[in-house]
Amino acid sequence: MIEFTDEVVREMRAAISIDGVRKAAETIASFVPSSPLMEHPLLTVAMGFPIRLKHENHLPTGAFKVRGGLNYIACLSEEARAKGVVTATRGNHGQAVAYGAQIFGCHAVVYVPHGNNPEKNAAMRAYGAELVEHGDDFDEAREAAEKLAEEEGLTFIYNANNPDLIHGMGTYTLETLNQWPDVDTIIVPIGGGAGACGVLTVVRALKPDVRVIGVQAANAPSVYLSWKAGDIRTTDSANTYADGLATRVPFALPFGIISDLIDEIVTVEEEEIRTAHKLVIETTHNLIEGACASTIAAARKMADSLQG
Amino acid sequence: MIEFTDEVVREMRAAISIDGVRKAAETIASFVPSSPLMEHPLLTVAMGFPIRLKHENHLPTGAFKVRGGLNYIACLSEEARAKGVVTATRGNHGQAVAYGAQIFGCHAVVYVPHGNNPEKNAAMRAYGAELVEHGDDFDEAREAAEKLAEEEGLTFIYNANNPDLIHGMGTYTLETLNQWPDVDTIIVPIGGGAGACGVLTVVRALKPDVRVIGVQAANAPSVYLSWKAGDIRTTDSANTYADGLATRVPFALPFGIISDLIDEIVTVEEEEIRTAHKLVIETTHNLIEGACASTIAAARKMADSLQG
Repeated sequence: MIEFTDEVVREMRAAISIDGVRKAAETIASFVPSSPLMEHPLLTVAMGFPIRLKHENHLPTGAFKVRGGLNYIACLSEEARAKGVVTATRGNHGQAVAYGAQIFGCHAVVYVPHGNNPEKNAAMRAYGAELVEHGDDFDEAREAAEKLAEEEGLTFIYNANNPDLIHGMGTYTLETLNQWPDVDTIIVPIGGGAGACGVLTVVRALKPDVRVIGVQAANAPSVYLSWKAGDIRTTDSANTYADGLATRVPFALPFGIISDLIDEIVTVEEEEIRTAHKLVIETTHNLIEGACASTIAAARKMADSLQG
Repeated sequence: MIEFTDEVVREMRAAISIDGVRKAAETIASFVPSSPLMEHPLLTVAMGFPIRLKHENHLPTGAFKVRGGLNYIACLSEEARAKGVVTATRGNHGQAVAYGAQIFGCHAVVYVPHGNNPEKNAAMRAYGAELVEHGDDFDEAREAAEKLAEEEGLTFIYNANNPDLIHGMGTYTLETLNQWPDVDTIIVPIGGGAGACGVLTVVRALKPDVRVIGVQAANAPSVYLSWKAGDIRTTDSANTYADGLATRVPFALPFGIISDLIDEIVTVEEEEIRTAHKLVIETTHNLIEGACASTIAAARKMADSLQG
């Protein structure tokens, strides 16, 4: 396993570039179509200003993580792919890895904690992954996955601390800037932070003046607290129903990028996420996840500064 | 208003062709992206054979009708567009007309019955249409809309009896045959029947051996009964919660085409639609409409003949 010393993180960060994102876009194009950026008139009316949703929920696996997982596996050596990969997850990351492994004919073992969402488990199995239930939470599952990687020589697929993963995540922002050249603000949920890093890598290279706002749940504010403090802070719990945001411990690589490049991070309460969730489902008929709803909750909260 | 005599219907039918569909595809391409045809692994597992969904719910307005409404308005003369259009609807057709009219800078008046779905009403207004609530059911709203068309010289946008509308609907099947060249069966819901006509026009021209199966609700079986009888039959009620299927009186133009070209029409019970609806939402996370669920209900019912 990689030890994420300051030196290692610095080298990884130096490997992240807009060219890496462009290359990832070419790599994944045959398997992941461009997702629509849609304005839903009823949502615009409700918000009071034009807002568009990047419909990553329309992609295979139903989530943006497919971009990162697929590029990650595509960038492995053939030898590594022949041996197989292993990861730990509670859902979308594991589906992305399973999907990518299936495409590249690579065996994938996915560890989930006991009591994990049975539907996510079934989805990973349906993409051909070998699912192992282990431990009581994500970290226990992750430790077992890391152990298997070391014992059997499998490649461990990191959840956020990897440049190829972040390059893959960046591809949706390449699309967004083409789809809406006049966009002035991008709001992105922050869980592990790889998604936000993709946004920042692309925006700062191509349209540096676009404002990037990160959103965390007030109940799971580790990245927000770390950003405020200027150094990594962890929380004892991450008790939000928006499970894409439920991270207790920020990852070193994305945190450094977010910390240096983001304009602002806001937090939203559970009730605000729920209200926004209902609003988006009613006005767009898309069964979005809580993490997506958090961005609309943030936009409602910041409406005054987003007008015009 | 047009009187749909046998002679008129015959002429309209002669105007429908694969070339018309191809031209419609060019016309709408800038405004309506190609929709994905997706296999959802959990759905395939649940069904027991590979099945793919054509995600018309990912289009602007959230429904395939946008294709027909947009092409219809695009094909009007500039003079007609300058005067404006009027139609009657309970939802998706009206949204398609409102969306098309907005794009072509044309005033649209949309009649809906009292008590119509308030969310659909709000969506039509959000696309810029002038909404008029009139009458107790669709037919009363339609009569008032026709009266306005005659009195004020507006173009009445027919719900199904129009070649340009059917050409627009056909475009999704052009996409489908490219996206899945090996498809052997297409299952399509039948309400007004324009969607099924689009499928049949394209399939019979390009891949005549593909089996086309229409689906109606057992509680709203007017097209099914007409197909069995070989002549138009109406029903006293169309009491299905899948409101895209709730047609009491088949339209002459689509019925003739369906009657001549379809392989089979099956009916599904309300309970079967509800079960399939739940299955699709759970396995795909798409908030589909009841009419879409009816096709999965039919596929489940016909599983034996669809295997392999």
